[in-house]
Amino acid sequence: MRIPMNMEHTELAERSGLIRVAVDAMGGDHAPAEIVAGAVQAASEGGVAIALVGDPGQVEAELERHDAGSLPIQVVPSKGVIAEGEQPAMALRQKPAASIVVATGLVKRGAADACVSMGSTGASMAAAAFILGVIDGIDRPALGGPVVGLAPRTAILDVGTNVDCKPAQLVNFAVIGDVFARQFLGVKQPRVALLSVGAEAGKGNRQVKAASDLLDKVGLNFIGNVEANDIFSDVADVVVCDGFVGNVVMKLSEGLGTALSERLRSTLADRLPREEADAIAKVVHELSNPVEGAGGGPLFGVNGVSVVGHGRARAGSLKRAIGIARLAVETRFVEKLNEELGRVRETVDS
Amino acid sequence: MRIPMNMEHTELAERSGLIRVAVDAMGGDHAPAEIVAGAVQAASEGGVAIALVGDPGQVEAELERHDAGSLPIQVVPSKGVIAEGEQPAMALRQKPAASIVVATGLVKRGAADACVSMGSTGASMAAAAFILGVIDGIDRPALGGPVVGLAPRTAILDVGTNVDCKPAQLVNFAVIGDVFARQFLGVKQPRVALLSVGAEAGKGNRQVKAASDLLDKVGLNFIGNVEANDIFSDVADVVVCDGFVGNVVMKLSEGLGTALSERLRSTLADRLPREEADAIAKVVHELSNPVEGAGGGPLFGVNGVSVVGHGRARAGSLKRAIGIARLAVETRFVEKLNEELGRVRETVDS
Repeated sequence: MRIPMNMEHTELAERSGLIRVAVDAMGGDHAPAEIVAGAVQAASEGGVAIALVGDPGQVEAELERHDAGSLPIQVVPSKGVIAEGEQPAMALRQKPAASIVVATGLVKRGAADACVSMGSTGASMAAAAFILGVIDGIDRPALGGPVVGLAPRTAILDVGTNVDCKPAQLVNFAVIGDVFARQFLGVKQPRVALLSVGAEAGKGNRQVKAASDLLDKVGLNFIGNVEANDIFSDVADVVVCDGFVGNVVMKLSEGLGTALSERLRSTLADRLPREEADAIAKVVHELSNPVEGAGGGPLFGVNGVSVVGHGRARAGSLKRAIGIARLAVETRFVEKLNEELGRVRETVDS
Repeated sequence: MRIPMNMEHTELAERSGLIRVAVDAMGGDHAPAEIVAGAVQAASEGGVAIALVGDPGQVEAELERHDAGSLPIQVVPSKGVIAEGEQPAMALRQKPAASIVVATGLVKRGAADACVSMGSTGASMAAAAFILGVIDGIDRPALGGPVVGLAPRTAILDVGTNVDCKPAQLVNFAVIGDVFARQFLGVKQPRVALLSVGAEAGKGNRQVKAASDLLDKVGLNFIGNVEANDIFSDVADVVVCDGFVGNVVMKLSEGLGTALSERLRSTLADRLPREEADAIAKVVHELSNPVEGAGGGPLFGVNGVSVVGHGRARAGSLKRAIGIARLAVETRFVEKLNEELGRVRETVDS
């Protein structure tokens, strides 16, 4: 059943209890082929109806490669793509029919429950902020989750674009991380920590010290400071930092893992069969570059579910990102987050 | 020849062209045994005269274990040690005869050319700042060098206690890194970069953007921003960041390497003989934890040579730290740094 972009699809999905996910079919290094393939996989496994947003000719051609005729997938036309590196706000104005704009718009007007993109993270953020709007008290969307492979149960945030944070923003990230860890990692009472330069209270820069004082008051399970090496010791479920520091954490982890992996490959070459050495090097690489494999994460602090993933995503990652979008919708992540942020804002302000 | 702490020693060293290094014999996890052993090694290899500053009974007892009678080593008595974790400024007042205080004092009054400690870095910094004084325009000593093992030719600074930096401080770190890379890494025209969240100009937080504008003017070989993963790509000789970010870089690298090393040991256990698996895991650990092995680095921005090393240092590291102190003295590192900082200050201020 290939249905056109109209109310029938929406009604159909609602009747059958499917979560409706708008997928940016043009975003990512391997779009549209891998994106369409991942969407077909997700739809095959059930639970979701997919709107593939993109150039109709290209997307239809990719769909023809799959046995997708009976799946709840439709094509929604868009024009243009916002590429990685384009200035997002300007690109949004210049390309009002770009795939990420149309996909986010479907969420805004209730024709989809969530959107997913492997394209420019900046474009997803800008589209979400402008079209869906941000939650009260959030300046711009935040981003995070288990971004370090050897700490797959530790959510780190912000790793997005909040590079100049007031202490109250770090408190917001703590609240977001708390809700995220409950809903996505299944932790009952997440241990929330601030990333700092010493574990003792009072260690840190001005921003962290002030945030620490605020976090003592807001009713989270705040365990104080952790240092960067503690990320690997499972002492905290949520590690809070500003987006500048979070970006350094994520990129250093990726870079170090990639460099170690290459070094290992040559070290092992003399001792193991080539395939085994390659396999071990690959494990090290994947452990350090989890974002490519994990699928993606929701943008935090926007009024709607928008999941962003890695540009290098292939079909499997896209499918997992759709799963994350579905989970966010099913657990009412945005509503829950709104409530918690409102509650904490009252505490911090009072 | 065991000579007492007096002018004879100074004159002797000067006559013989030896660099006189005061070593904090009580600082570090393995003090005094490993410290004394390292000092004996350094003195045996020539070029330095050593003043071992510590509890005379303990230090003499350790010296007795070595065939050090003919070496230019003397014992200088001190009382007490400032431990890791003590509040340095307060400890300095409470323990005016502590080993690091006495060792730094020898440099101040010209009885030693440099001091070296594997004890509390904070105590070394406080002693250097209070006793030797900081260079004009430096708020507190900075610390850095090749702290990431897979980037052994890339100096990263600050990794010390400057956790709230004005843009002009980052410029100072750039100048320090430039002089360090020339004198310690032998780079003719060091490529100096700012650590940021994107390689493009204009990417970063307010601090980094303002520092970037200043760095365009000061006559260094400033190549702009690098991202954390670029540290492993040899695109820059000097990577500048504030001490908060630098601490995260250093500790994350250590923590990730340690975690990967442990994971590897178990992954390899099935495929290689135990010793080989252990050896490979050890290489990964060492690549990620270079500071333990490298010896140490000079405190930057103080009026004198004070080298600090890792608390876990053993004899070999202490010997290498003494070598670093010697190199700093021989290359007139402090004087050169003073000149460059003065020159740049005029440019930035004008």
